[in-house]
Amino acid sequence: MAVDPELAIDLLKELRELTSDENGAQRIAWSPMWLKARAWFQKKLSTLPLEHHLDPAGNSWTTLRGASADTLILGSHLDSVPNGGWLDGCLGVLCAFVVLKRIAEQYDREPPATVRLVDWADEEGARFGRSLFGSSAFAGTHTIDADRNRTDTNGMRLEDALANCGVSVDRIGEAQKERIHARAYLEMHIEQGPVLEKLGLPLGVVLGTKGVERHAITFFGQEAHSGSTPMTARRDALAAAAKLALAIKPIALKYPDAVCTMGSVKTFPGIVTAIVGRCETTLDQRDLDTGVLAAMFHEAQEQSRGFAEEEGCTVEWSRIWNIAPVPFHPELISLAEEAVWETAGRSHRMPSGPLHDAAEVSRAGIPTVMLFVQSLRGISHNKIEDSREDHLKLAITAYDRLASKTMDWIAAQR
Amino acid sequence: MAVDPELAIDLLKELRELTSDENGAQRIAWSPMWLKARAWFQKKLSTLPLEHHLDPAGNSWTTLRGASADTLILGSHLDSVPNGGWLDGCLGVLCAFVVLKRIAEQYDREPPATVRLVDWADEEGARFGRSLFGSSAFAGTHTIDADRNRTDTNGMRLEDALANCGVSVDRIGEAQKERIHARAYLEMHIEQGPVLEKLGLPLGVVLGTKGVERHAITFFGQEAHSGSTPMTARRDALAAAAKLALAIKPIALKYPDAVCTMGSVKTFPGIVTAIVGRCETTLDQRDLDTGVLAAMFHEAQEQSRGFAEEEGCTVEWSRIWNIAPVPFHPELISLAEEAVWETAGRSHRMPSGPLHDAAEVSRAGIPTVMLFVQSLRGISHNKIEDSREDHLKLAITAYDRLASKTMDWIAAQR
Repeated sequence: MAVDPELAIDLLKELRELTSDENGAQRIAWSPMWLKARAWFQKKLSTLPLEHHLDPAGNSWTTLRGASADTLILGSHLDSVPNGGWLDGCLGVLCAFVVLKRIAEQYDREPPATVRLVDWADEEGARFGRSLFGSSAFAGTHTIDADRNRTDTNGMRLEDALANCGVSVDRIGEAQKERIHARAYLEMHIEQGPVLEKLGLPLGVVLGTKGVERHAITFFGQEAHSGSTPMTARRDALAAAAKLALAIKPIALKYPDAVCTMGSVKTFPGIVTAIVGRCETTLDQRDLDTGVLAAMFHEAQEQSRGFAEEEGCTVEWSRIWNIAPVPFHPELISLAEEAVWETAGRSHRMPSGPLHDAAEVSRAGIPTVMLFVQSLRGISHNKIEDSREDHLKLAITAYDRLASKTMDWIAAQR
Repeated sequence: MAVDPELAIDLLKELRELTSDENGAQRIAWSPMWLKARAWFQKKLSTLPLEHHLDPAGNSWTTLRGASADTLILGSHLDSVPNGGWLDGCLGVLCAFVVLKRIAEQYDREPPATVRLVDWADEEGARFGRSLFGSSAFAGTHTIDADRNRTDTNGMRLEDALANCGVSVDRIGEAQKERIHARAYLEMHIEQGPVLEKLGLPLGVVLGTKGVERHAITFFGQEAHSGSTPMTARRDALAAAAKLALAIKPIALKYPDAVCTMGSVKTFPGIVTAIVGRCETTLDQRDLDTGVLAAMFHEAQEQSRGFAEEEGCTVEWSRIWNIAPVPFHPELISLAEEAVWETAGRSHRMPSGPLHDAAEVSRAGIPTVMLFVQSLRGISHNKIEDSREDHLKLAITAYDRLASKTMDWIAAQR
């Protein structure tokens, strides 16, 4: 039996037709459109002899029982950002579907290991700002008290939106029970960046997800009249911030895969006739190595203090959020590399800058690896998000090979 | 007869009491509080044998007829910004009042020249964004068609607000008739900057108002994911803008009195996880020399293009507004310097960065000069705006001396 890549692509197009408008995909988690996508998907699964249930965090589990309880989990997420693309998340779910279908058919409905497909709830966090919702509940890294009172732009509370979908926020930790017998997790995703395209490669093997240091940095100077204040008498908060905006690139370039981004700058009073008295910025730093991440954070902080002093300003740092790097399983990385080589004749090892549900699964101690397929123009979270169809077919084939290799690997662990 | 500086200061305090709240002065032009300030001021003038009228632009004229029709104009503005200080504008009006009173009393009500006091309408432009409203109508540089449909934050049109104060926007050009027989204009103002305080001087002679080049500058890069986009694959619009933010200081420092300010930076999408795809900035450049102003503008524009190219971005410039430098009258500058020397034993020549009604009067071809009195901490447009009382007394005395010298100078012109 061979996997059917065409079927996965046809289903992705059917889903796009069903859940997008002229601005892109609209499968925002906990919305009617998301529920519609999930119902559509269950109908596709219903032809197979599978058990299905939602766990207490809203993750959707479909199980093909095998001869052994040892379990291979395949999955990703159906939810999208508003005005999203046709591949982010749902590619991984549909890959998992056609592989699950192939396994069910090949083994006459009882494979040597149990295989489960998971559609994680609310990976994007688009509505309430809490990403990896379902997978963190599964991993036991959820944060109920911090999240319960989050509200969307209409003022609806996360707790109430979840209740409307049958999920009680107080019980999401019970999703950890789904970890039983889990021996490996595999996820296919679009790269969402330009690296594979620049290298001319269809597929990449993901080494892990980068750790993130995310900070709000505010420079305080002195608001003053742009016409009456000599250049030498100024305490310009923007000048100090501009120096930091330029310093983060050389800091990141010291390390091969590190990135540093200043994504937001706000000036106060922010009028054409006043020197900036206060400048609020954000910094996002990422690397797969904990030591690199710490070094970059301290270097940026140190330099920012120097810049503030040079401009007669002060600076304050406030951590918005951070997460440690999550390296994937070395043996699964090797298997993934074999599968990619056998499928595409070339491979590339790379860290993931964006976070994925796979990071939460890996943090829960379950051997994990991901594959990336090339993104055109590196663009995601946008209706023009796209990948070449020949690349998508290679991706599905490689993912299928990896699933077979991983089932063998699970059997060998026993 | 001697001028009475104490009276001017007492009246300034009385006006503050009458037209401020806990956040500062609230004499916004065309508001009930502004009309109240004007009515209060007319009552103070009513003890003198003066003719009073409003011109078609709402400027308030009070005339002491002299033996000659040749006219010395003294003035400034009673209107303030919201939450303004107690000196900006009204210091000049109250200085003019006590000097007019001194002249009226000294010459037994008929001085050798005609002396007029003007309270310009809407110098600040705080409500409709059109500063120097009344003085530009007087000078014939008004822009009715551009201003008619300006609205305040409540959506009220400038045209309607003026009608409520008895001013028809279509007739403001008729204020030019007030220029008849005008031979000189003198204005006292707070410095609104830190220069005199740093030099330890109470008073300065103003050489003119700097010209202004005011531009919106937008850098266009490529929005991309902060985690998945390598440093070397970025087109970061903020990086290009930051380079310009830092380049404007060395550009300005080439010239002794020039200033360049980036007062506003806006980042799009402006979120912590995205590289800035579009960065909107503003630039305000000022100098008293037309050539310097043009050189600074071209240098900033040239450099911005280089910065954009370095960062893989493009840049667009759009002029918001500009005005040529307005040098004051050289002979009146000399008289002002004499008056300041005789009063304070020290003087300092300086350009004004902020614009003033005096610039419009000077543009109309009327010999003009201004005096500045030291501002504490260089702060204005704020309730903590202040000047030392001994400095205010010196200012009033020097202004009075300058008025006498200017009346002699007018007589000598005949």
